[in-house]
Amino acid sequence: MSTTPTVEILATPTGLVDCPGFKVSGIAADIRETGDRNRLDLALIVADTPCPAAGVFTLNDLCAAPVQLCKIILENSAECIAGIVVNSGNANAATGEQGLLDAKQMSTFAQSQTGIGSPFLVCSTGRIGRKLPMMRIDAGISDAAQKLSSGTTASQQVADAILTSDTRNKCATAQFEIEGKKITVAGIAKGAGMIEPNMATMLAFLVTDIQAEAALLKTILKNACDQSFNCISIDGDMSTNDSVLLMANGHSGVTLNNSTENLIYKAFASAVLEVCAQLAEKIVGDGEKITKLVELKVEGCLSNADAEKVARAVGNSLLVKTSWYGNDPNWGRLADAAGYARVGLKADSLDIRYNDCPALVKGVPQDDKIQEWQSVVSEPRFTVTMNLNLGAGHYRLLTTDLSEAYVDFNKSE
Amino acid sequence: MSTTPTVEILATPTGLVDCPGFKVSGIAADIRETGDRNRLDLALIVADTPCPAAGVFTLNDLCAAPVQLCKIILENSAECIAGIVVNSGNANAATGEQGLLDAKQMSTFAQSQTGIGSPFLVCSTGRIGRKLPMMRIDAGISDAAQKLSSGTTASQQVADAILTSDTRNKCATAQFEIEGKKITVAGIAKGAGMIEPNMATMLAFLVTDIQAEAALLKTILKNACDQSFNCISIDGDMSTNDSVLLMANGHSGVTLNNSTENLIYKAFASAVLEVCAQLAEKIVGDGEKITKLVELKVEGCLSNADAEKVARAVGNSLLVKTSWYGNDPNWGRLADAAGYARVGLKADSLDIRYNDCPALVKGVPQDDKIQEWQSVVSEPRFTVTMNLNLGAGHYRLLTTDLSEAYVDFNKSE
Repeated sequence: MSTTPTVEILATPTGLVDCPGFKVSGIAADIRETGDRNRLDLALIVADTPCPAAGVFTLNDLCAAPVQLCKIILENSAECIAGIVVNSGNANAATGEQGLLDAKQMSTFAQSQTGIGSPFLVCSTGRIGRKLPMMRIDAGISDAAQKLSSGTTASQQVADAILTSDTRNKCATAQFEIEGKKITVAGIAKGAGMIEPNMATMLAFLVTDIQAEAALLKTILKNACDQSFNCISIDGDMSTNDSVLLMANGHSGVTLNNSTENLIYKAFASAVLEVCAQLAEKIVGDGEKITKLVELKVEGCLSNADAEKVARAVGNSLLVKTSWYGNDPNWGRLADAAGYARVGLKADSLDIRYNDCPALVKGVPQDDKIQEWQSVVSEPRFTVTMNLNLGAGHYRLLTTDLSEAYVDFNKSE
Repeated sequence: MSTTPTVEILATPTGLVDCPGFKVSGIAADIRETGDRNRLDLALIVADTPCPAAGVFTLNDLCAAPVQLCKIILENSAECIAGIVVNSGNANAATGEQGLLDAKQMSTFAQSQTGIGSPFLVCSTGRIGRKLPMMRIDAGISDAAQKLSSGTTASQQVADAILTSDTRNKCATAQFEIEGKKITVAGIAKGAGMIEPNMATMLAFLVTDIQAEAALLKTILKNACDQSFNCISIDGDMSTNDSVLLMANGHSGVTLNNSTENLIYKAFASAVLEVCAQLAEKIVGDGEKITKLVELKVEGCLSNADAEKVARAVGNSLLVKTSWYGNDPNWGRLADAAGYARVGLKADSLDIRYNDCPALVKGVPQDDKIQEWQSVVSEPRFTVTMNLNLGAGHYRLLTTDLSEAYVDFNKSE
């Protein structure tokens, strides 16, 4: 055997139960305390036997109580995790000592209600600065523990229960075969505002049936996040609760070793990246009140770090985002933002392309093509390539436009 | 004489002619090529005799042709500047070699039309990436040269001619008396979008009748800019054309020397700062489609630089700005943004006040006061104070909310 196995993406993923050996449930606990008994807002994800897990978390100084707790649990028990308990509708962030006690309570109550002796990881997402309604949380966990299932209905309910302002759930599943055995990586995620991940992002949960140590899972997950969730931006606001978790239950009977040259390693890392990349793109595509998804490629910088600075300056510029919203191929605003990234931009070296159509070549506007740019910028999805022609550094950012509806949507919670 | 003279701010400034020894004119040249013959868009500011001048400019790598030219002129001839020629409606930015030739042509044509042998500084503001309509510029300069005046009508026309998306002109004048002589510092400025100055800002023009060397003027101007224009933000987009210019014609007969302990120095520096601060506040107050002006005070950081990071993260956060627009006292979004500034925020040390009303004390929400915060955030102008309680570093940023109308306004040029 000498070629890396082909990783296949499922055309119609059904959620985490695409991976054997996990049971899930998603129920309505009225965490928002609005009296809505139909909105799913609490989820349990449980491995058939406790197993290794890894996590990547927000870099925000104000990291939420569940993030703090996950870090502690993974430091002490990463090889033996029972599962994950998640609520939406309340972030349990900036909630002080009580917040940490509440997160711990979620974890221990999930243990007692499922009868599993190993710890549960905990995630929350929603409004910052409000105490969790613990009566509802406890009742919800009891309910969810009784409904655990490996069926596709439960799987979709979990994918729905973690959502906040998202308009649809986000699932991705990748598979490959090796030694006659099939390996699956299944993932779900939620967006859709406060999205400017840095080394981690919003909530995403991945499960796999490969056998692997937690440290190795973490390396692979971190690399995949850097190339997927960390390359997207909707509104430039990095959240307090960003968490990506991966659990590996070993049900496939295939063991991952830590040689990066190993074919299993390559295929598995590729499958994790594919799932993360698909989820990341689904998050951007469902960004709050967006009308356009823009793939921004920055090339020709002195370093990849410089290219990232340019991409974030351009991709987060209000004037750039609003011009995209208005179908205005206003390359001057892109050049301005690239200039204030302060990476040594030279006006007479800058190329800008909309899809394949050149708008600026070595600083000279291609005004005869203006109808073409206009038509590209009017599409719901397009690519902008900016080449500074200074070096080989490059970066790719998936970003969005900014609509009046975003402002309206966020003017109150 | 042992106390610094009191600096007085004129209640009804009339523009640059508040300072003796300058003539000005503002005319309509149809720079936007829309056929509008009434919109003022070209201005001349001329010292009765050529005099020292200083400038502070954008740090954007993509600095516009007139900014490049001003730097060259000030390096070579700062002690002997004839005046300033300004157009609005076209930024002459990202216009390549032709742009620099056009800026030079503006400068030399202003010389020939006024018959003055010293160089003119040049400023432009408006859309990026379009060539200047030089026929109209030349005709406009001829017209303006014939209309130079020290009257208040011309003074207001100049203040109007430099505007773009501003809804009103912005003038500020400060005066003090020393040795029986009166010193005046008069200034005008324009905003109102692409405002995230860094060491310089948009366009502002100051004139004074003190006698001073250019190098000394520059020191004082730079200090004043750091404490005024550089502490404001509307949309986080630093412009290609930010320029603040100061001309000193010496008509008062009072000479500035370079001892910072000198009373004249103190009073003059204070007067320049007052004018800059007033203009900066007027720019924020006239930000594109804003409904609220927010004074954001960040205190208790390990350094002033850290406090500035926090202030800019919070003041530029879309989620913070939209919540202010919606009268939503959503302190969680402020805390989140302070957290991603990554200056070591500790959740249980953070205080947040709306005006004098505490919302968060050492991380604990003061929920009994929520009606009060709501009422503060509903006002058109309020102060938010965030104390991280880590050290003595502080920063003050004047910022704004973000409205749906901003998005609508900027979706096309």
